Amino acid sequence: MDYEKPLFFRVMQYAERADRDVIDMVSGNPDWEPPEALREGLREYADRPVDEFQYPPSDGLRELREEIADRRNVPLESVIVTNGGGEANYLAMAEALDRDAGKEVLLTDPVYPYYPGKTQMLGGEATYVPVDGDGRLDPEAVRDRASAETAAIVVNSPNNPTGAVYGEETTRELVAIAEESDAILISDEVYDHFDQSGRFTSALSIDSAHRVVTASFSKSMAITGFRVGYTVLPPALAEPARTRHMLVNVTGSRPAQYAVLQALRETDPDYYAGTREMLAERIDAFTDALDAAGAEYTRPDGAFYVLARFEGFPGTMNNVERLIDEAGVAGMPGEAFGDSRAEWLRFALVTPRAQEAADRLAEFFA
Amino acid sequence: MDYEKPLFFRVMQYAERADRDVIDMVSGNPDWEPPEALREGLREYADRPVDEFQYPPSDGLRELREEIADRRNVPLESVIVTNGGGEANYLAMAEALDRDAGKEVLLTDPVYPYYPGKTQMLGGEATYVPVDGDGRLDPEAVRDRASAETAAIVVNSPNNPTGAVYGEETTRELVAIAEESDAILISDEVYDHFDQSGRFTSALSIDSAHRVVTASFSKSMAITGFRVGYTVLPPALAEPARTRHMLVNVTGSRPAQYAVLQALRETDPDYYAGTREMLAERIDAFTDALDAAGAEYTRPDGAFYVLARFEGFPGTMNNVERLIDEAGVAGMPGEAFGDSRAEWLRFALVTPRAQEAADRLAEFFA
Repeated sequence: MDYEKPLFFRVMQYAERADRDVIDMVSGNPDWEPPEALREGLREYADRPVDEFQYPPSDGLRELREEIADRRNVPLESVIVTNGGGEANYLAMAEALDRDAGKEVLLTDPVYPYYPGKTQMLGGEATYVPVDGDGRLDPEAVRDRASAETAAIVVNSPNNPTGAVYGEETTRELVAIAEESDAILISDEVYDHFDQSGRFTSALSIDSAHRVVTASFSKSMAITGFRVGYTVLPPALAEPARTRHMLVNVTGSRPAQYAVLQALRETDPDYYAGTREMLAERIDAFTDALDAAGAEYTRPDGAFYVLARFEGFPGTMNNVERLIDEAGVAGMPGEAFGDSRAEWLRFALVTPRAQEAADRLAEFFA
Repeated sequence: MDYEKPLFFRVMQYAERADRDVIDMVSGNPDWEPPEALREGLREYADRPVDEFQYPPSDGLRELREEIADRRNVPLESVIVTNGGGEANYLAMAEALDRDAGKEVLLTDPVYPYYPGKTQMLGGEATYVPVDGDGRLDPEAVRDRASAETAAIVVNSPNNPTGAVYGEETTRELVAIAEESDAILISDEVYDHFDQSGRFTSALSIDSAHRVVTASFSKSMAITGFRVGYTVLPPALAEPARTRHMLVNVTGSRPAQYAVLQALRETDPDYYAGTREMLAERIDAFTDALDAAGAEYTRPDGAFYVLARFEGFPGTMNNVERLIDEAGVAGMPGEAFGDSRAEWLRFALVTPRAQEAADRLAEFFA
C-alpha cells in the first residue's frame, strides 16, 4: 500500500495541469479561517524578545501543556506537544512496538494510509480488521484478531475516510481488548472537533495504562502547516516517548506553539461550533446531489470526508483522472485506503463549492 | 553517556534556584538579535490567506529549498528541509544505518551528546575516536578505526564543544575514508557561520555518494526555537530520507519556514559578519580573563564555546554547582561530552557578560 501523501500529490498535480476549472476535494486541508487569536498570536510573537525565539522545553511550552492538560483533564506529565498529529502517531506506535510485547499492529480496512507506512518503517506487521459498510468498527472483530503478538491497535474516530464516529461502548471495548492482549490502543482523535453525531467518546474518558491518545490543532484550527499536535501517554510510555521526541526533533516549532496557545486561550466555543455547522451544510448539499447522481454513499457522522460509489466506475487513479478531465471534480481514489474501498472515491469537503461539485458529478453520471 | 538536554536542564534549573546573580553560559541559545527580516517575515505571514497556513510540501517550501540549493550549489532534489539540525542528524544517521552496511557509528571524543543518544536509539554501536588536546581530528586516527562494520562517521565542524575547525585536507580525507569503508560521512555544519579561522571547509565542496551534510538556521539566525534546518543527501539516501521524514513528521512548521525564507533573501552578509565579530570580541575578553585566572583552555577557531580547565577542579556536576553558588557562573560539566574532557568545563559565549564571568572565575580561583 502506498502512503497517502505522494498519491495525494499525484492527484493534485494532475488536477493543476488540467485544462479546465477543477473543484479540489482531494486534500485534508481546511479552507476556512483559523481563529483570529491565532493570527494575533503570530503578530505578537514576532515582537517578543530574542530569548523567546530559543528552544522551548523539549516536550512543549509549559503553558501550552498546562492548557491541554486542564482541558483534557489529564496529568501534566502525560502530555507531550509534538510536530503535529503525524509525530504524535509516530511516537505512540514506536513506543508500543518498543515494549517487546509483539510486532503486530491491528489497523482497520479502510485505513488512513500513514498508519501502514509507519508500521512498516517501525518494523511492525500490519493486520487489517474490516469495518462494516457504513464504517462501523465491531469490537468483537478486533478481539478475534488480537493476540499476545499484538503490540498496538490503531483507530481513528471521527474517521478518515469513512466518517464513522465510535461511541462510548466501542471505545470502552477497544481499551479492554488492548488490556486483555497486553497491547496499546492508540486512539487518533484529530477530528474530535468535527463530530456531527454527538456520540464521539474520547479514549481519554477511560483511564488505562494501555491507551494512548493522539490529537492535533491542525484541523480544529485550520492550520495543518503549523505542525502542533500532542499525545497523552500513560507513565510507562511517556518517558521513553519524551526521549525519542528529543532525539528525533529536539522540540517542536515555537512560533506555532505560541500562536496555538493564544488561540486556545482566546477562542470562543462558537468558532468550533460554527465550523461544524458549516460542514453540516456542506454534507447536506453534497449528499443531496449525490442522491440525485444515483451514487451510493455513507453520510459521515464526523470528520469532513464522504466516500461515494458510482455504478461501474471503480475508485482507481485512472477514474480519478477521468473525473478531473471530464467532470471537473478532483477526489481521492478509494484504493488508496485499502482493498475494501477500491470501488469508492473519497471527496473532502474542504471547498465552498461542494454542492457545485456534486452537481457536476450528477451531470457526468447522468 | 547522558544526553545533553536533560543535563543542560539540570544545570539551568540549579542556576535559576541559586540565591545570587548567575551568569548563564550553559546553553547553546544565542542571545543576539535575529535578522530583522525574520521578524518581518513572521508579521507578513500572520496575514497570509488560509491556504498558506496548510501543509507545505513534505520536504519544505519549494522557494526555501531553491534558495538553499542555489546558495549551496547542490541539486534541488538533494535538499530536505527538516525540523532543525536535530532532525537532519536523525535522518542522516537513520539512513546510514539502514543501508545494511554495518552497525558501527564512529564519533569523536569529546562528542556532542545527541550523537551517542541517536546512535543508541537507532540500534547502532558507537566507537569513539579521540581528538587532540586542541580539538584537532587526525583523519588517520579515523582511518585506523574505520572498517567494513562502519555505517557512519559523524563529525561536527566548527565543533561543539572544542571550537575546532576542520580544514580542507581533513574534510577531504574524511570523505575518502567514508568511501573506502562503504560508510556515510555525516558532516554536521550548524556552526558554519561562526568560523573565526577562515579555514572552514564544508563537506559539500567534495562531491561523493558517501557524504551527507546537515545544517540549520538555528544558530546563524539566532532562532533555535524555530526548528528550521536541512540536510543535503546523495540520491540513494535522499529518497528513503524523504519517506522517513514524511512518516515521522509529515513536514516542518510553515510559519518558521516562511520567516527563514524572507530572512535568507533579505539579510545582508553584514549581519553574519557582525555576529562573528561580536563573538570574536567575547572570545578575546573571556580568554584574556581565563589567562588571568591561570586556567588552561583552547582558544576556539569557531562556534561559540570555550573549554577550560582549572587545576584541581574537575568538570563534574558537583563542581558546576559550586561555581554557580560561589562564583556566580554557570557552565556545563565537561564529563557530559565524554571521558576525555572530564577535567574540563564548557562555557558558552551566549551572554554579553562573558568578560565579567571570566573575572568572577579569576577571583574564585585566585
